[in-house]
Amino acid sequence: MKTTTTGTRERIVRATSRLLQRQGYEGTGIKQISREAEATLGSVYHFFPGGKQELAAAAIRHGDLEFAGMLREGLGSSEDPAEAVTACTRLLAVALRESGWQDGCPITSTALETVGRAPVIEQAVVEAFANWRAVVEEKLLAAGLGADDSRELAATVISALEGAELAAQVARSEEPLHVTGKHLARLIGTYR
Amino acid sequence: MKTTTTGTRERIVRATSRLLQRQGYEGTGIKQISREAEATLGSVYHFFPGGKQELAAAAIRHGDLEFAGMLREGLGSSEDPAEAVTACTRLLAVALRESGWQDGCPITSTALETVGRAPVIEQAVVEAFANWRAVVEEKLLAAGLGADDSRELAATVISALEGAELAAQVARSEEPLHVTGKHLARLIGTYR
Repeated sequence: MKTTTTGTRERIVRATSRLLQRQGYEGTGIKQISREAEATLGSVYHFFPGGKQELAAAAIRHGDLEFAGMLREGLGSSEDPAEAVTACTRLLAVALRESGWQDGCPITSTALETVGRAPVIEQAVVEAFANWRAVVEEKLLAAGLGADDSRELAATVISALEGAELAAQVARSEEPLHVTGKHLARLIGTYR
Repeated sequence: MKTTTTGTRERIVRATSRLLQRQGYEGTGIKQISREAEATLGSVYHFFPGGKQELAAAAIRHGDLEFAGMLREGLGSSEDPAEAVTACTRLLAVALRESGWQDGCPITSTALETVGRAPVIEQAVVEAFANWRAVVEEKLLAAGLGADDSRELAATVISALEGAELAAQVARSEEPLHVTGKHLARLIGTYR
């Protein structure tokens, strides 16, 4: 029984995350989430009494973990931090292309649509960005870069990945991600 | 009569642009656009018989010109291309802060919400990104950088500005833009 209950909540969160990623916050309704998750409306409200804002915050935490996992996979592929960051852009490019250019950043659209209007969502977004920066910062520190440089470079890496993913999605091309990967590697190389 | 007519269309486009920027595509209705523009629904449909998609495409072209103007202002402030790009991040940071962290990129949210679902909007988005890259590319070429380097760096500059503006908006802080400006200047410096 416990397993089934966990499974339902998880299905609801995954469905919400995918819908928000593909059609944004305003375009996603709780009924559609319930259908896609194959869960009753009653169970959606049972797990998320706070409704759509609470659902969106949980979905953003899910996207946060997903993206952080991808970053760790890419960064773990090489000891050299410049090569490791480039590996992240390759992973992002493949995932984006394989989704038919649909699955970009899991949180950007929701974040922009709810700026200043949904504190519980904004908090989850702020934490996601901070987590991603921390994953990159840790890699740069481990590679011997200074503390300030690692912190600042990590911020630029995450910003550049976000922007390049958007550009790649819009252009339906991997190129913006590959070009940004090359430049981030070059930038990181100047700090070694 | 002609002036009034032009004025009404312009008000509608500006209102649409601002609403899309602040609340996204799905969250913006034609009735709200008509109210904000102080135009009748009839005149909205007179100028935009294609409805919301046509309105959004016109608003994106408006945002395209607005952002390109800001880029030209920043890039024109210094002969040195590295300093000039940093000036763009400063202009973006000030504009974002002065809008109470509301007015980020005028097209990102709409672009993401309509990926694969509204060709007329997608086309306007693709053209906007291409225009912005061209403005930066022209500056880099004029500063003596090679053709391939200028084209690729311009793509990375626009991606990084987009991502840093998102990060700044979410964090309600100018810092992500200033840090990205510093790093872009450093990166461009390695090509001179």
